[in-house]
Amino acid sequence: MRGGNKTHLMAARRFDLIKDRAQVKFCNELREISSNMKNMKQLENSVLVRRTDQIKEELRKGVRKPYREVIDVSWGDPHSGGLKPLSFVRQVLAACLHPQLINSNKMPMDARQRAQGLLNKCPGGSVGSYTATAGIPEIVHRVSEFITRRDGGVPSDPANIYITCGSQWALTNILNILVNPEASSRTGVLTPVPGFFVTNLSVKSLGGVTVPYFLNEEQGWTLQVEELHRALESAKGVCNPVALYVVNPGNPTGHLQTRKSIQEVIQFAAENRLFLLADEVYQDCIHGENRGFVSFKRVLAEMGPPLSDTVELASFHSASKGVLGECGLRGGYVELVNLDPGVMKYIYNLFSIDSCPPVLGQIGLDVMSKPPQPGEPSYPLYSQETQHIRTMMVQNVKKFSEVVNSLQGFHCQPLEGGAFAFPRLHLPPKAIEAAKEVGMQPDTFYCLRLQEEAGVIARPGCDCGQREGTYHIRFCIMITPDIMEELLRRLSNFHRKFMNDFS
Amino acid sequence: MRGGNKTHLMAARRFDLIKDRAQVKFCNELREISSNMKNMKQLENSVLVRRTDQIKEELRKGVRKPYREVIDVSWGDPHSGGLKPLSFVRQVLAACLHPQLINSNKMPMDARQRAQGLLNKCPGGSVGSYTATAGIPEIVHRVSEFITRRDGGVPSDPANIYITCGSQWALTNILNILVNPEASSRTGVLTPVPGFFVTNLSVKSLGGVTVPYFLNEEQGWTLQVEELHRALESAKGVCNPVALYVVNPGNPTGHLQTRKSIQEVIQFAAENRLFLLADEVYQDCIHGENRGFVSFKRVLAEMGPPLSDTVELASFHSASKGVLGECGLRGGYVELVNLDPGVMKYIYNLFSIDSCPPVLGQIGLDVMSKPPQPGEPSYPLYSQETQHIRTMMVQNVKKFSEVVNSLQGFHCQPLEGGAFAFPRLHLPPKAIEAAKEVGMQPDTFYCLRLQEEAGVIARPGCDCGQREGTYHIRFCIMITPDIMEELLRRLSNFHRKFMNDFS
Repeated sequence: MRGGNKTHLMAARRFDLIKDRAQVKFCNELREISSNMKNMKQLENSVLVRRTDQIKEELRKGVRKPYREVIDVSWGDPHSGGLKPLSFVRQVLAACLHPQLINSNKMPMDARQRAQGLLNKCPGGSVGSYTATAGIPEIVHRVSEFITRRDGGVPSDPANIYITCGSQWALTNILNILVNPEASSRTGVLTPVPGFFVTNLSVKSLGGVTVPYFLNEEQGWTLQVEELHRALESAKGVCNPVALYVVNPGNPTGHLQTRKSIQEVIQFAAENRLFLLADEVYQDCIHGENRGFVSFKRVLAEMGPPLSDTVELASFHSASKGVLGECGLRGGYVELVNLDPGVMKYIYNLFSIDSCPPVLGQIGLDVMSKPPQPGEPSYPLYSQETQHIRTMMVQNVKKFSEVVNSLQGFHCQPLEGGAFAFPRLHLPPKAIEAAKEVGMQPDTFYCLRLQEEAGVIARPGCDCGQREGTYHIRFCIMITPDIMEELLRRLSNFHRKFMNDFS
Repeated sequence: MRGGNKTHLMAARRFDLIKDRAQVKFCNELREISSNMKNMKQLENSVLVRRTDQIKEELRKGVRKPYREVIDVSWGDPHSGGLKPLSFVRQVLAACLHPQLINSNKMPMDARQRAQGLLNKCPGGSVGSYTATAGIPEIVHRVSEFITRRDGGVPSDPANIYITCGSQWALTNILNILVNPEASSRTGVLTPVPGFFVTNLSVKSLGGVTVPYFLNEEQGWTLQVEELHRALESAKGVCNPVALYVVNPGNPTGHLQTRKSIQEVIQFAAENRLFLLADEVYQDCIHGENRGFVSFKRVLAEMGPPLSDTVELASFHSASKGVLGECGLRGGYVELVNLDPGVMKYIYNLFSIDSCPPVLGQIGLDVMSKPPQPGEPSYPLYSQETQHIRTMMVQNVKKFSEVVNSLQGFHCQPLEGGAFAFPRLHLPPKAIEAAKEVGMQPDTFYCLRLQEEAGVIARPGCDCGQREGTYHIRFCIMITPDIMEELLRRLSNFHRKFMNDFS
C-alpha cells in the first residue's frame, strides 16, 4: 500500500518465484533464497515489523513501557493518523448503501440528492451491482470534468479515464502492458530514488528492471534532467528502458515539481521515446502558500505540438490521499494521454479481467471530483472540514521542520507537498558500527530503537532507496496536532539520548 | 467480471501486446491483428455489445420497439436482476461509514453493535484506513470459522486466508505465481469447457496457455476424469501443465459436483502433481433439495494422508454471489491449503503490492461469515430475506427448465447450483447458414436477434467455449419472478418465430 507499514516485498522476479515453487513441489524442500540482497531486504523489515507487533501485543497485555500507545507514522493513512472523514463523503456513501437514509431529514438534502442521483446510475439501482470496467460512465465523466477544471481548461476525454481499485492497481496494470517479460533484453523503467518502493516491486514482479535515478537532496529533492540522462546511459547493455516513473508531489520527499522541471522531463521523455508514468496522488496536498500543483497533463498540453500530440502519458490519482483520505475505499483512477487506440483496446481488455472497480470507491471519487458547491447546504461544513485539514498540514509542516531541524544530526529539506517528511539523519560512526554488528542497516537500527524506546513507528530510508552512505527516516506528517506534538516530543527525547549513547 | 456483459477480451498474450505497442510507438501505425481467431472473437462481441448499447440509447430516445425495456441476463449480478440487498448487510455497512448511525434507534441493536465492533478493529477507527494485506485479522478469523463450520469441523487456519478485491483478483494473482512466462515450455492450466472465459484470459495475459477439458453435457455437465486424462495427454509437447482449474457449482453449466467426482479430481491432481484451483463462488447457491455443496477442501481433508497433506489447493469464494449478491463491494477471499511456507511468503509479497482489499468488501465477507444468529434482533428479517431468495431460485429453476425444455430445439440439463442456465440450442441449418453469411457464430447470431426483437440480452455459448458444432445460450436465472416470467414470455415468442423463419 502507499506508505503502508508492510513487510517489504522481496525484490523477487516471477522467474525466481517459479523456480522456488518448482523445487517446493517436486523436492519437498524450499531452495535457499539465492541472493544476499534479497535476504537482507527481507531481514530488515521482518525485524522491524515483527517487533512492532510484539510491542503492541505487550502493551495490550499491560507490560510497562515509557509510553502507553504507539504512534505509527509509517503509513500514509490520514484516518489512522487521527484525521476525521469528511462528513459529506460519508453521508453520500451511507445513503447509497442504505437508501432509507435518502428519506431521512437527519441528512442534508444535497447529500441525499447526490446519493439518489448516483443510485439511479447503478445497474438495478444498487451499489451492489457490477459497473462498466472503467467505472459508472457518469462518474467517469465527472472525473474528466474535475481534470479539465484542474488543468485550466485543457480538455479531458472520459474515454481515456479508468477508475480502478486504487492507483497502485492501475499503475501495475499499465506496467503490465509496458513490461515485456519475454524480450531478449529486459524492459527497464526509470524510477526515482528515494521513491515509493512498491512501484519497484511491481516492475520486478512483472519481469522488468528498475533504472534508478537520484533526486537531488541538496537542491530540495529536485528532479534534475542531467541525472535522467546519466540513468538512461547506465541502462545501456543492461535493459531496454521504455518508461519513466515520476512522483509529484514527492513520496517520500515532500518536494513539489516546478512547471519548468516538468517541461524538462517531458522533453526528455519525448527525446528518448519513454512512456511517462506520473504518480500525482498527492496533488491535493500542497503546503506551500505561493505555489500550486501543476499536472504533467496540463504542462504537456501547453507545450503544444508535436509534443502534446505524441508523448504518451498515464497520470494517476486517488481518493485515498489529500483531504479525502479514504484509503479503505480503494478508489483511484488513471488518465491516459496520446495512446494509440489499438493499445487502449488492450488496456480495456486487461482491466476487464478484474471486472469493475469497487463501487463505493467510485462514489468517493465522484465526491472528490464534485464536492459541495457554494450555496449548497453541505458547502459550509465541507469547506470548514477541508480548510481545517489544510491549515493543520501547514502547521504540521512548520512545526515538524522546526523541531527536526533543531535536532543535532537531522536535516529536513523544505516540505512543499504530500504526506511525508524524509529528513536526512547523520548518524555517529559508533551507531553505524553498532548496526553493522547486528547485521542491520543503520537507519533500520535507529527505527528499531525509536519504536522500542519511544513507541514511534517510522520507516527507514533504506526502504525507499537513498544514496549510499546516507541515512533517512520517513515520517507521515498527516496526523492531528496532538499526535504531532507527542511525536515530536518523543522523537526529540529519544534522538538526544540516542546521539548521546553513540557519541 | 463474473458473468459480465463485457466485450470479450482478446486472447492476446502480453508478448503480442508489446509487439503491437512497439509498432504503435515507433511506426505510428498499428500492426494488423495477426490471428483470425482473435479477430473473430473480438468481432463476435463487439457486434453484440455495440448493438446492446444502441438499443438502450434508442429506447431512451423513445424509438418504438416491441418492448419498453431490455432484460439483461448476460451478467451474474443479483441486484441488477432485481434482487434486493440484505437489510442487515447494508445496515452494518452504512453504520460503519457513518458512525452517527450507531447511536440511532432506527437501526437494530445487533447491526449497530456489529458495526461498532468492526470499527474498533479498523486502524484509527475508520473504514477509510488501510488494513493488513490479508484483511482485518478479526474478519479473516471469522472467515476461517465460517469455513470450518461449512466443512463439518475440518480446521481452517486464518494464516492461509487472504481477503481480496474479488475472487477473480485472487485467482489472477495465484496464477501469477504459477505461470512462468519465461520457461522454455509454456505453463499450462487445465480449464473447463464451457467455462468462465475471464479465467482463460487471465492465464493468457500472464503468458500461460489453457488446456481445455470438456464437461460432459449429456451426463448433466459432469466433470469426468477420463476427459482430464485426455486433456493432459493433449498437452504433451505443447506446454507444461501445472494447475487444474475447476468451477463448482458450475458457471455456466449449473452442475453441482458430487463428492465422488471431487475425490477423483483430487486423485488425478495428486497423480499428476497439479495445483488445484477450486472456484467455489456459487457454493451458497444450491437449488437441489437433496444435495448440498461439498468443498474441495473438505473432501481433500477427509481423504486423509498422504493426499490431505500434499495436494496444493486454492479455494475461492466471494461476497458477490449467492444470497448476499454484493458484486459492487468487491470482496472475495482465497484459502490456500498445503502450500510451502516459502511459497506463502511470495504470495504475501505479491498480494501486498495492491495494499489491502476494499474495507467495505471485507465487512461484506464478515457478515457473510457470521450472519445474525437465532435470538438476535435481526435474525427473523435476515432469515426471511435469505429464505425468500432461496425459494425464488428453486422456483426460477423449475420454471426456466420447464419452459425452455418445452421449446423446440432447446434442451437444458438439470440445474443444481449457481446463477446460470446454459441450454443447448439445436439450430436449423438455415440459421447456421444465415449466420455464416454475415460472418458470425450461429449462437451470436441468435443472441443478436434475441436482443433486437425481444430486448433480451443473453450471452452466446461461443463466449464460454463449447464442443464444435454445438450451440448454447447462457442466461442468468438469479432474477425476480416478474423478470423471469417476462423473460420466458419474450424468449418463447421470439424462439418460435426464429425457428419458423429458418425452418
